[in-house]
Amino acid sequence: MLRLYDFVTSGNAWKVRLTLSHLDMPYERVEIDRTTTHTQSPDYRAINPLGLVPALRLEDGRILHDSSAIAFYLSEGTHLLPEDGYGRAQVVQWLIFEQRYVCETVGMARYIVKTLAEAEARAAELAEVQRQGYEALDQLERHLEGRTFLVGESCTIADICNFVYVAMADQGAMDLTPYPALRAWVARLEALPGHVAMEAVPKPVLRLP
Amino acid sequence: MLRLYDFVTSGNAWKVRLTLSHLDMPYERVEIDRTTTHTQSPDYRAINPLGLVPALRLEDGRILHDSSAIAFYLSEGTHLLPEDGYGRAQVVQWLIFEQRYVCETVGMARYIVKTLAEAEARAAELAEVQRQGYEALDQLERHLEGRTFLVGESCTIADICNFVYVAMADQGAMDLTPYPALRAWVARLEALPGHVAMEAVPKPVLRLP
Repeated sequence: MLRLYDFVTSGNAWKVRLTLSHLDMPYERVEIDRTTTHTQSPDYRAINPLGLVPALRLEDGRILHDSSAIAFYLSEGTHLLPEDGYGRAQVVQWLIFEQRYVCETVGMARYIVKTLAEAEARAAELAEVQRQGYEALDQLERHLEGRTFLVGESCTIADICNFVYVAMADQGAMDLTPYPALRAWVARLEALPGHVAMEAVPKPVLRLP
Repeated sequence: MLRLYDFVTSGNAWKVRLTLSHLDMPYERVEIDRTTTHTQSPDYRAINPLGLVPALRLEDGRILHDSSAIAFYLSEGTHLLPEDGYGRAQVVQWLIFEQRYVCETVGMARYIVKTLAEAEARAAELAEVQRQGYEALDQLERHLEGRTFLVGESCTIADICNFVYVAMADQGAMDLTPYPALRAWVARLEALPGHVAMEAVPKPVLRLP
């Protein structure tokens, strides 16, 4: 069975759980507490040398890490990845956009405000990542005006991966009110049959020591 | 014919020129001077809303932007992308690694030192991106110890895309001396038949007004 090295409040891990749920793929979870030193332990470094969650162990024991790469692997040949090469390349482009412009800004704001609870101590840094985050949201809003999904006419992993930190923007004290197209897209994704809430995780089969 | 919106000293554009050369694909160039306001002009924003080079216009007029997404598009079905899904997902993982950890650090150091010539004025920022850049080089070095290429046994777009800013690390006042595996890998890529120097560009068919 697929084994997901997971952490319930990690947005990157949620991307993989969403992809697995949309594809109705069974998996077992190993809970890695990112707030402790678990991810830096030699045991976990042997699984992901970058010391980050998530990672996925395939049934033959091979490991993949990076949420977008895992989503790409799981989605090939399914409805979550376009059949045509142009569509697939557009998905890759939005996966990279998310990692470079959304995760590092909107995701970082959430990390400072919610995970670390250091909004006051790191006010200047927070303001800067929020400013950059709004630039990324501007791009997404412009692209989604008149579109249903980021690429093509149905939900792909480009939507799933960009959705996560946008949907939690309020946890980084960011406001989606000026973004009607983005808000409609978030609601559209949350209404899909395969959607699962961040907290709706299967019981872990084990916790990393 | 494929049309590349290009800028000769852009590392990201070089990735695409390298990919095209390795695949022996003909293309025409439009030279976009990133140091002026060309990339912010309405004409160019219509091609790439992010206002960045490179962008690629396909023969049917459709546009792709983001160097890694373009490389992915061009390489599907060729020797530059593995045939198996696990290999392709590993390539995606290294494309994202490059955009997130190499381009933003080693590439940014080059931008500050060489492109802007602001190494002294922005010394603290430069030191920080160099520090983060060395962390990325550490990861690459560890991965390449005992390996010939990043994924599998032959050159893929993961190598081409990670190569560019590593090969120019000295232009950001970064030193590859402590990285023997990386230096051997750079030399290995430069010796491949499809390799082209950054400056070896075809004459542009037009310059954007």
